[in-house]
Amino acid sequence: MGEVLRGCVLPDTFYPVENLRAYLDFGSQRSYRKGEAVLLPDEVLGKMIFVLSGRLKVSTITPDGREKFIYSAGQYCLMDRLFSFEEDHILIMAVEDSKVCFFTKEQLLMAFKQDEELIIDVLRNFASKVYYFLNQTNELNLYSPSVRILRLIYELYKSKGKYKNNTWEINAYLPNKSISEITGLHYVTVSKIFGYLKRQKIFKKTKTKIIIYDVERLKSLIDEGITY
Amino acid sequence: MGEVLRGCVLPDTFYPVENLRAYLDFGSQRSYRKGEAVLLPDEVLGKMIFVLSGRLKVSTITPDGREKFIYSAGQYCLMDRLFSFEEDHILIMAVEDSKVCFFTKEQLLMAFKQDEELIIDVLRNFASKVYYFLNQTNELNLYSPSVRILRLIYELYKSKGKYKNNTWEINAYLPNKSISEITGLHYVTVSKIFGYLKRQKIFKKTKTKIIIYDVERLKSLIDEGITY
Repeated sequence: MGEVLRGCVLPDTFYPVENLRAYLDFGSQRSYRKGEAVLLPDEVLGKMIFVLSGRLKVSTITPDGREKFIYSAGQYCLMDRLFSFEEDHILIMAVEDSKVCFFTKEQLLMAFKQDEELIIDVLRNFASKVYYFLNQTNELNLYSPSVRILRLIYELYKSKGKYKNNTWEINAYLPNKSISEITGLHYVTVSKIFGYLKRQKIFKKTKTKIIIYDVERLKSLIDEGITY
Repeated sequence: MGEVLRGCVLPDTFYPVENLRAYLDFGSQRSYRKGEAVLLPDEVLGKMIFVLSGRLKVSTITPDGREKFIYSAGQYCLMDRLFSFEEDHILIMAVEDSKVCFFTKEQLLMAFKQDEELIIDVLRNFASKVYYFLNQTNELNLYSPSVRILRLIYELYKSKGKYKNNTWEINAYLPNKSISEITGLHYVTVSKIFGYLKRQKIFKKTKTKIIIYDVERLKSLIDEGITY
């Protein structure tokens, strides 16, 4: 029987490759201070980056010099910089004090020889990235901005929602800036949509929580769309 | 030194894993007639699909029943259905008479044991998919519909353009329907934009070719945008 993975709702870490921890001796470790660059645009690293602690941010620099967020990498995330792509302009920064381990192709293959299940873990990590981004492409193609945000909140509710005092709570540190980066919507649009949803008593967002008052209404708005 | 791969301009086959041909005996082969389904939505296959000949089309069925094209898989494309994702609703159809070989996890690992370079090939295939789709996400977030089409044509010119009689020719079977599927734009919008570009003598598209008369003008339109 095949294996069914849960897709990532947020672009964060993807499938963690915890078992690679056993082979840190094969690679080379390095620490980064918050704000330090781990990879500069157009740097050809030729190594996998394995996050041991802290958090890195992956972004790309657009032709007109804007930084576009791609994903966030927490503990045991594996970041494939074994291969670069022409003009990918990828920038990786430490957003917290972080520790990473670099693996060359040869070092990875040595680890794979010790534990072939590790190969499958790495494939799971890649597959979850492919699925996240192809799904994002579909979201952007198929849904309007407001519906994209509603769908994101609904997916968070499905994957992380906890029932409490007649409402659903999602513990997530998700500032409007992050939601803007994830959905590709302007910060002001995100704020407007959230303002509307709060006035309609459908849900509200605090610094560390999303509280949903009316799941059914949220669901039906996904079909109807909203004007904010 | 790290390895620089060329990103795919079109969602087609991605990095082909030709060397897997040597291990077909480990897997199980099957032929499909044009129009036959290789994978039905919500089928949990648990196998990699390796295309030996012909062509498959991967799409997803949206909640409201629309079919959304994802990518096209030609010879030596590896399609990861070792893992499914919850509610991914992936449909794979043969669009030509095709022959494929299925590999279970165990069969793949057997092949990897014989040739560890094959693992790296499979990772290249996955990496090129990740990069294609994250790049698409960025395109959709950053550029207007017309600029997305101009950028696509420009990338095709860079990767496949051949100079001939004072013009650049790109041999590509790319009906407007395919361009509509790739860019997520409505068929009518695609036709309108191409009409405008033809009237402006910038380029024209025939059934099997794109002919660019004015590369510089094409390039500057990418910055300026067009109203069609």
